[in-house]
Amino acid sequence: MLHRLDVTGTLARHVAATSWDDIPREVRHQAKRSFINLFAVALVGCRAEPVEISLRSLGEFSGGRQATVIGRRERIDALSAAFLNAASANVQDFCDTHLRTVIHPTAPVAPALLALAELRRVSGPELLLAFILGNEVQARIGLAISPQHYDKGWHITSTCGVFGAAAASGKLLGLNERQLVSALGIASTQSSGLCECLGMPAKSVGVGNAARNGLWSALLAEKGFDGPAEPLAGRQGFYNALGEEPDLAAVIDGLGQGFEIMATSYKPYPCGFVIHPALDCVLDWRREHPASEVTRVVVRGNPLLAHRTDRPDISTGRESQVSVQHAVAAALVHGAAGLDQFTDACVNDPRVLALRRKVEVVRDGSFSTIAAAVEITTSDGAVHLMSQTAARGSDVNPMSDRDLEQKLITAAATLNPAHDVGPLIDAIWGLEASTDVSHLASLAMPKG
Amino acid sequence: MLHRLDVTGTLARHVAATSWDDIPREVRHQAKRSFINLFAVALVGCRAEPVEISLRSLGEFSGGRQATVIGRRERIDALSAAFLNAASANVQDFCDTHLRTVIHPTAPVAPALLALAELRRVSGPELLLAFILGNEVQARIGLAISPQHYDKGWHITSTCGVFGAAAASGKLLGLNERQLVSALGIASTQSSGLCECLGMPAKSVGVGNAARNGLWSALLAEKGFDGPAEPLAGRQGFYNALGEEPDLAAVIDGLGQGFEIMATSYKPYPCGFVIHPALDCVLDWRREHPASEVTRVVVRGNPLLAHRTDRPDISTGRESQVSVQHAVAAALVHGAAGLDQFTDACVNDPRVLALRRKVEVVRDGSFSTIAAAVEITTSDGAVHLMSQTAARGSDVNPMSDRDLEQKLITAAATLNPAHDVGPLIDAIWGLEASTDVSHLASLAMPKG
Repeated sequence: MLHRLDVTGTLARHVAATSWDDIPREVRHQAKRSFINLFAVALVGCRAEPVEISLRSLGEFSGGRQATVIGRRERIDALSAAFLNAASANVQDFCDTHLRTVIHPTAPVAPALLALAELRRVSGPELLLAFILGNEVQARIGLAISPQHYDKGWHITSTCGVFGAAAASGKLLGLNERQLVSALGIASTQSSGLCECLGMPAKSVGVGNAARNGLWSALLAEKGFDGPAEPLAGRQGFYNALGEEPDLAAVIDGLGQGFEIMATSYKPYPCGFVIHPALDCVLDWRREHPASEVTRVVVRGNPLLAHRTDRPDISTGRESQVSVQHAVAAALVHGAAGLDQFTDACVNDPRVLALRRKVEVVRDGSFSTIAAAVEITTSDGAVHLMSQTAARGSDVNPMSDRDLEQKLITAAATLNPAHDVGPLIDAIWGLEASTDVSHLASLAMPKG
Repeated sequence: MLHRLDVTGTLARHVAATSWDDIPREVRHQAKRSFINLFAVALVGCRAEPVEISLRSLGEFSGGRQATVIGRRERIDALSAAFLNAASANVQDFCDTHLRTVIHPTAPVAPALLALAELRRVSGPELLLAFILGNEVQARIGLAISPQHYDKGWHITSTCGVFGAAAASGKLLGLNERQLVSALGIASTQSSGLCECLGMPAKSVGVGNAARNGLWSALLAEKGFDGPAEPLAGRQGFYNALGEEPDLAAVIDGLGQGFEIMATSYKPYPCGFVIHPALDCVLDWRREHPASEVTRVVVRGNPLLAHRTDRPDISTGRESQVSVQHAVAAALVHGAAGLDQFTDACVNDPRVLALRRKVEVVRDGSFSTIAAAVEITTSDGAVHLMSQTAARGSDVNPMSDRDLEQKLITAAATLNPAHDVGPLIDAIWGLEASTDVSHLASLAMPKG
């Protein structure tokens, strides 16, 4: 039995009590950066097969054309829109990451809020505030059980994301402390998502549900639907079932003194973030050397690198996004690590396939998750050693605002070269002055 | 890492290969008994607040009036109907139980099938076969991790029910082995539900989701949506995350040689089944003795009794259904343990409250979950000892067909005294001859 700290109540009080004035300038700005990145990755993902099939299936049961499906003409009910936009944002493994938990924080939270903003009138500051708080709640819940929760097979973006979506949606709905505890309780009994599904369409169901069920938890709580008093730390609650030796103090200590959203990393490459520092090394090296010379590659990194991405045998583009062997081989062959390097075609390219077999992974606890060392042996017997201490895009080596805008522009162009996302970018940077954000998501719809 | 048995594939093959001719007569009959009981408990539950609120909320997002909400005039989309009917069936803790796992087997499975039978043409034998197989799949998945899974805080009806609903729905849809593995994989990443929510409205969300998400898993798999190859026993799959030392052989050994549905217990009393043998003792004793004399009650039972129902301090009718103290006290005061004994009014009855404080629970591993001993001390100093080795309604001391019919008749009468469920009862007993069961659920709608 866990020590009975008032964990859920403390989070709920914090969410209820925090106002826009409490949010520092740089935190507000970071929230906008997350929205720029969200639209980029959702535009990349919105035509992926898991999204197409889910949309077709949900459409058979959906009522009303309440909310936007990002990047598409279809509209659908708000719960399904939350599901689909979260799935789109995450399906290509291109979304942002909270590194200490490896939660992809924006995918479950922002889609819930965007859907809700098409049901109720929501201002830009209200949207950003709710987003920042949802982000905070899910990160803190995850911090208490990282990394052992993920090691156990839990897809933490899904399991913790449902709390983030519930807290954020609850904030937008103006729930009081008691109602927020209920929302988190209803979310707790919907927390699920398995790492076994990574690299498969089923992954999108976990992430989509986090947004959909989090939003629904808040809507039920608003109608008076109750959950338990302490769903997180209760005797048979979330931490007892899904956590091993949780550090409950990590959930509530210092609430409001800092914001976990500041630790968000954005991805320059569309694959698992733990692979990124190795890709930095390989791409730098590749600028000077041809791929044909490589006889062996040893990637040394944090144990999570091997745990999550040691997948030498893969057959689809989707699986390739969580295969360090593939990412490194493709980057060496093509000198790039963009969307084209994580396709079925690239996975089955004989040159990439041959090189994939030469890539080994070594677990080394002395590396952080954003650091790696790569040792490349070439046919002349030479051994080349590279290392990266902080991956590009990580919070300590961040992508610039311009980089993020460019990521969104590139993403939109892959969908439709004529798609001008300038108005969307302007709307996001201008969110603080917006009194009604109901049209934000529809700005991502390709014209013509 | 778990041993790589082909667990999911074996289950999928069994579901795909089993035909109506493989089902013995007594198994077919038991399936019908489960449907009689389902309608009884859903009629009791269909006006409960969690169902009312869920219906109101889901109605805002639902398209079409595809399927029946049991006992109500409203119709709703099939996914939401599956959710609501599962919630109705389970909300009053009156539904059936597979004792070795403590899964309530019918609530997640049958509502998914009834909803699907209003979308596609389904015959009586098809309905019963799918139901029996879904029941088998969820029971076997649960057997491998019982009782430790529940002890860890997992509400096993929800966590395993989603697999039962997926397998059963997949059978009705005619999925092949590979598609059934996908359906079980999509279900695996939606497996959730916490015991902390028992006694609260949030419980209904876990059970409702099991039916809804299991059905949706099968529908997605039918459209070509993939899951992992081994979602159950895979390295980061269901058993690694939600099970401790699973006995994987229990899932697949002897498949088809017996049917777990034969181990279903039906409840004469609307509360947790582990409380029932104690209630048998108390009600028998109470026939001869007045309640006012009692000064102390000691209930000795399987450790699960204390684990799940040791709740001396409760304040609502809903909580009372998982409080052994309340159930025993109410039975002693009223000489009955029907729906009236698990209401807010009964919980706050000062006589019941006073007696509740005198009830102690003792864990004793020598008792099975259907056995208990009760020691009642009266004001004259006498100590009365009673025991029950097999609770009424358990598989070895079953309710008769007539008892089950009467349970349905009584349930319908609480909703509407003029409601004649004769045609519904006839339709269930006659299911084997039915070529189209689409109207079955609507027979439970009160007339007038």
